[in-house]
Amino acid sequence: MSQLVEFVPNFSEGRRPEIVDEIVKAMLACDVMLLDREMDASHNRAVVTIVGEPANVAEAAFRGCERAAQLIDLNTHRGEHPRMGATDVIPFIPIQNMTMQECVALARRVGERIGNELQIPVYLYERAATQPERRDLAYIRKGEYEALREEIATVAAREPDFGPRRVGAAGAVAVGARPFLIAYNVNLDTRNAQIAKDIAKIIREKGGGLPSVKALGFALEDKGIVQVSMNLTDFNVTGMWTAFQHVRAEAEKRGVRVLGSELVGLVPLEALAQIARDALQLDEFSSNQVVEVKLSQAKTRI
Amino acid sequence: MSQLVEFVPNFSEGRRPEIVDEIVKAMLACDVMLLDREMDASHNRAVVTIVGEPANVAEAAFRGCERAAQLIDLNTHRGEHPRMGATDVIPFIPIQNMTMQECVALARRVGERIGNELQIPVYLYERAATQPERRDLAYIRKGEYEALREEIATVAAREPDFGPRRVGAAGAVAVGARPFLIAYNVNLDTRNAQIAKDIAKIIREKGGGLPSVKALGFALEDKGIVQVSMNLTDFNVTGMWTAFQHVRAEAEKRGVRVLGSELVGLVPLEALAQIARDALQLDEFSSNQVVEVKLSQAKTRI
Repeated sequence: MSQLVEFVPNFSEGRRPEIVDEIVKAMLACDVMLLDREMDASHNRAVVTIVGEPANVAEAAFRGCERAAQLIDLNTHRGEHPRMGATDVIPFIPIQNMTMQECVALARRVGERIGNELQIPVYLYERAATQPERRDLAYIRKGEYEALREEIATVAAREPDFGPRRVGAAGAVAVGARPFLIAYNVNLDTRNAQIAKDIAKIIREKGGGLPSVKALGFALEDKGIVQVSMNLTDFNVTGMWTAFQHVRAEAEKRGVRVLGSELVGLVPLEALAQIARDALQLDEFSSNQVVEVKLSQAKTRI
Repeated sequence: MSQLVEFVPNFSEGRRPEIVDEIVKAMLACDVMLLDREMDASHNRAVVTIVGEPANVAEAAFRGCERAAQLIDLNTHRGEHPRMGATDVIPFIPIQNMTMQECVALARRVGERIGNELQIPVYLYERAATQPERRDLAYIRKGEYEALREEIATVAAREPDFGPRRVGAAGAVAVGARPFLIAYNVNLDTRNAQIAKDIAKIIREKGGGLPSVKALGFALEDKGIVQVSMNLTDFNVTGMWTAFQHVRAEAEKRGVRVLGSELVGLVPLEALAQIARDALQLDEFSSNQVVEVKLSQAKTRI
């Protein structure tokens, strides 16, 4: 199987589709595949999901960043979502036959090239961070473009990993590597939002719960139910089955029934294989036992 | 997504690999993919697993049958496994974007061509059967090649669906359609084989248990444990999660712990998606939410 890596660049343009078209076109010229693109007008932001082989993805990320810098001016950009650059963030995510370390190396290579060739300040974040506090994107992006513009030349903590200590109209970009993020929700048969909030607090990592789990609890007013909404930030650490079981156990303690669960967006096949392993104690199972995977490796000659 | 169908022809040759090579070569000339091939000397039988688009699979099945008829003589064939033909059975199995009805139509088309062009008697079986009793392969193959040779011309029940009422050295072939079969075992922490036998008896369809489940219980002497060994003959009816839960519940009633479960061979992606749906009450989940599936449908142009 070939190596596959996903990247999900976020661009500070959510209102003019023709601008996003131009940027996407620059990326798709690099033999990569578009999985998804979304624009949000109030956020004034576009999120594009692209997959390909590492070298093509590296080229596409650079080309997208280059085109965005030509088309988007942060001095006039307004939107609800925090941002500091025309290309705001570029996370790289291992999908197939690719280690996290390889993804980190890829992020650093792309970041260095953006800094050098486009003269855009680059901050490495999450697994690619070079300083512990920069693992956190919110720390890097604090005060957004406007604060960065004032501080980058003078404040030591603002020194970028690559590129100049000044920002132009394209702002700065955060380039990083992280595991695939699974957005996973469990719905509970109660109107009492406090129950969802309590369960979220118990199961999330921050409260000493499950590692690599973020969780919030709230009511879905229109449905008359509540939801524990989770981000599984590393499904190899805590997968869907484990998260589901913990939410269910906490709900049962409170006399509340689980109505069902839902997966927002995509998951890698490996996350499904992991559910099978965990739920069925299917210790030896490998995704190579999936017909469709086997097919992609199949011989056409004896 | 293109249509994909699997077929698993069984040939009456398990000792001379060069003969099986010849047959496989004839099939692989038809733009299909070889997933697996196994030979068993004591059974004197080869089982080949091939996947492809319907038209190519139909051609490959015919070519394999034709070549086997040239190379295998049932008059001299001996082996432990019941058999009635050089190509003994050809089941077609829907894998992707293919209904069971389409598979049945495919089986009948191939069967008719084998009967007409190769002058080999063809019996349609399982979902492709034209008579209820012929759903059961054992019924068709009763007495094997030797009995069929004696009776085909005279016994009404032996009249083939296609081809002549006489068998040559190539014997006859059963051509059918069936769902993907999952071989799934649950291991229990006891040395008491009777417990596995009792559980198998309760959960299998024959005993009024789970529909589309066959089950046997026996000891794995070398490991000092017992196993409930199942064939899930239609995982859309009873899937792995349901089977696992029932075995576990019966084991717990008897104070026995489940050690784990194991999947023999391959499963379609859809069977994994079904585990996710069942175990996590993930009602809306579709295999289109799997990154790798999405990739196979991805756009490379905006």
